[in-house]
Amino acid sequence: MPFTAPFAPVSDSCSEESAPLPVLGRDVRVPLVTGGEVTYGALDYAASAPALQRVWDDVAAYAPYYGSVHRGAGHLSQLSTDLFEQSRRTVAEFLGCREGDQVVFTRATTDSLNLLAAALPSGTRVFVFETEHHASLLPWRAHEVTYLDAPRSPEQAVATLESALHAAPAGPKLVCVTGASNVTGEVWPVRELARAAHRHGARLVLDAAQLAPHRPVRLTELEADWVAFSGHKLYAPFGAGVLAGRADWLCAAEPYLAGGGASRRVARAADGGVDVEWHTTAARHEAGSPNVIGAYAVASACRALAEAGFERLVAREEELLARLVGGLAELPEVRILSLFGADADRVGVVSFVVEGWNSSHLAAALSAEYGIGVRDGLFCAHPLLRTLLGQRGDAPAECGESAGEAPASNAVRVSFGAGTPDEHVDRFVAAVRELVRDGARWTYRTEGGRCVPEPAG
Amino acid sequence: MPFTAPFAPVSDSCSEESAPLPVLGRDVRVPLVTGGEVTYGALDYAASAPALQRVWDDVAAYAPYYGSVHRGAGHLSQLSTDLFEQSRRTVAEFLGCREGDQVVFTRATTDSLNLLAAALPSGTRVFVFETEHHASLLPWRAHEVTYLDAPRSPEQAVATLESALHAAPAGPKLVCVTGASNVTGEVWPVRELARAAHRHGARLVLDAAQLAPHRPVRLTELEADWVAFSGHKLYAPFGAGVLAGRADWLCAAEPYLAGGGASRRVARAADGGVDVEWHTTAARHEAGSPNVIGAYAVASACRALAEAGFERLVAREEELLARLVGGLAELPEVRILSLFGADADRVGVVSFVVEGWNSSHLAAALSAEYGIGVRDGLFCAHPLLRTLLGQRGDAPAECGESAGEAPASNAVRVSFGAGTPDEHVDRFVAAVRELVRDGARWTYRTEGGRCVPEPAG
Repeated sequence: MPFTAPFAPVSDSCSEESAPLPVLGRDVRVPLVTGGEVTYGALDYAASAPALQRVWDDVAAYAPYYGSVHRGAGHLSQLSTDLFEQSRRTVAEFLGCREGDQVVFTRATTDSLNLLAAALPSGTRVFVFETEHHASLLPWRAHEVTYLDAPRSPEQAVATLESALHAAPAGPKLVCVTGASNVTGEVWPVRELARAAHRHGARLVLDAAQLAPHRPVRLTELEADWVAFSGHKLYAPFGAGVLAGRADWLCAAEPYLAGGGASRRVARAADGGVDVEWHTTAARHEAGSPNVIGAYAVASACRALAEAGFERLVAREEELLARLVGGLAELPEVRILSLFGADADRVGVVSFVVEGWNSSHLAAALSAEYGIGVRDGLFCAHPLLRTLLGQRGDAPAECGESAGEAPASNAVRVSFGAGTPDEHVDRFVAAVRELVRDGARWTYRTEGGRCVPEPAG
Repeated sequence: MPFTAPFAPVSDSCSEESAPLPVLGRDVRVPLVTGGEVTYGALDYAASAPALQRVWDDVAAYAPYYGSVHRGAGHLSQLSTDLFEQSRRTVAEFLGCREGDQVVFTRATTDSLNLLAAALPSGTRVFVFETEHHASLLPWRAHEVTYLDAPRSPEQAVATLESALHAAPAGPKLVCVTGASNVTGEVWPVRELARAAHRHGARLVLDAAQLAPHRPVRLTELEADWVAFSGHKLYAPFGAGVLAGRADWLCAAEPYLAGGGASRRVARAADGGVDVEWHTTAARHEAGSPNVIGAYAVASACRALAEAGFERLVAREEELLARLVGGLAELPEVRILSLFGADADRVGVVSFVVEGWNSSHLAAALSAEYGIGVRDGLFCAHPLLRTLLGQRGDAPAECGESAGEAPASNAVRVSFGAGTPDEHVDRFVAAVRELVRDGARWTYRTEGGRCVPEPAG
């Protein structure tokens, strides 16, 4: 039986815009268990942001002109090839790439970092803080990895890295570091870490999955060697991400994917085998037909953000963050998770626990009773969560497993961006206040890994 | 400077539908160098097919409801998670998967086959015909690979495989074979090859990139162990593809990508390292946020094809193929490339060379003078092309390199599908006839790897 999705037509005109950049879904309404319906409050941008209206409009305008790229001889093939290569240049400009840097289109940050991991020279030692998202923590396991303990300040992060690099044997070294934590939203001292890396002959790759949607990310200014980010967190959820940076290791490595597009020449060898000559451009790591729509969507988002101006976006985000953090701070039951302390520089990503509350139930109540979509769990950063929650050893990762256990075995994360109206943040703060003071009106139990609401009593 | 794409608004009402399934771009008009403009004849489906109108409509209806999947607690997160998992089930049904088979969403066929290559048990010997697309020829190079010479009939293919498997030492074995050639369109005897593989304790993966858009591909009927295909060749060009089939090797393998989503539990180990427990479901190989729109688009295309009915689609395609092949056969200068002979079963993919013509120039003339988009080159199947063209050793792969060389150093490929109106095929046949008999009206030269037209004389 085909799945019928409940896609009601969405009116285009009913919302008052209070967000810097309009996004799709801004007028979607969802039902409340307590009756009635409200505009959906999408506050899980750190996982996936809605598409910018402009990105959607660009994709929709291009879609009828979509054609096979590369060796297609027709008009639409040439237009699509040009669009794909132009998208690469737009991204390079957005990232402040250096002359000679390569921009490789991948699926997403995870894919980008796995690509780089596969391209490291043999014998590379990798340095990574335990506080990273699993996407930056785990791809390096085929190499020698030094896991660094969680620092408690940006300065301590630099000092920890310096001392680890100082103690390391000679040979190629890579530091992988987040630009902004996907859990605390805290901004890491990327340039200082890059300088420390370079002082010790190491290179640095920046995981900008959380930073790029919120702050300008320019390789030249941050002095990073590579940067990775995802389209779906940058308002362009069409399956493309980026790895950009120094070409030398990329060109010297075996292709990430073997196949057409990456191969320049293939011939049977005299011994019955097959000889391959690979491309040395970004195409080397992009085998298969490129995701033209995905790459164009990413480029469209880059242009939209650049044109909106990060200065304006950051100022507005900090104002909203102050309201959010200030509102939560009024509730003594709420503990905001932080590595670097209350004054740390952060983007619009905040995780917290509430005394007496199971975080999964709190997140479920925010959805069911207030139409607000946040996230609960360990956010694919288990070691960091354990550090922040003061736990040792294993902690449950699944909603189902945390029910009935210590309330602080996972956390709630709220995150927003350039498409978030003020009202969503205000509604969120008011909802948490009400839930914490008065309790949920329904009860929540776990079913099939999800928390589902039931009428109380 | 931002790129301005020449996306004229496309009228929705001016074309007479003569294709079984409407596609985007069916009303796009392109200019001719000889003056005026015509509706674009997209005849490069074998590289990338246009999106089905229905796929686009489904994506457009869903897009405002797009949300973060997995642990998102909000309505749209749960809707998106359900949609993603339902898409997996739709694809499993489309492919006639067996109980326990896994459907992994990848980028495309190339990615799917690279995934399987990374998941093979150690010591696996891979058997692959030299006639494969590079995506199925090259991913196995980290293993022992036996390259099989081009067979000249389906029966010979089976016999060649049997004898190679018979001669092989004990241990795990994999056969990788195309369902339909991306060059000749010829259909391979998949079930017979699968049976031969199984008789010798080998498994078989089917590269269905070219078969799936044209014929029913059902694992149970074809007796294949895995199948790989691409969304962009199946009218769903949103960056997703599929690997589906037996779970055991996939579950036992290291995750294809390391990161969140694939990891169930991550913890610092006593020795300072990191312990990981990976998922054993399809999520094991899908680290990173899934491409929900891409997966949903693939599922939408599967539904559309299943509902249209392959019986009807195949009958209509064979009629068009007869017109195409019959039309070309009337021209003695044209040689259609074939491994299995004129009576071979084939899908809507035909490659040919024309005596006295540089294939790149012919393709360029079809675009510039007739508004028809085909492809020229070696189609990422260099060894096959050399066999078909009767060449030995290296042959040029680039348009630029073939200019001025022997005319048959590459070929022209024309390919179509369920979105192709009859008129495109008729226009193509008439255009080739006119070009071959009367010559091109403009001349074509190579510039930056492309053939560009210049007024003759």
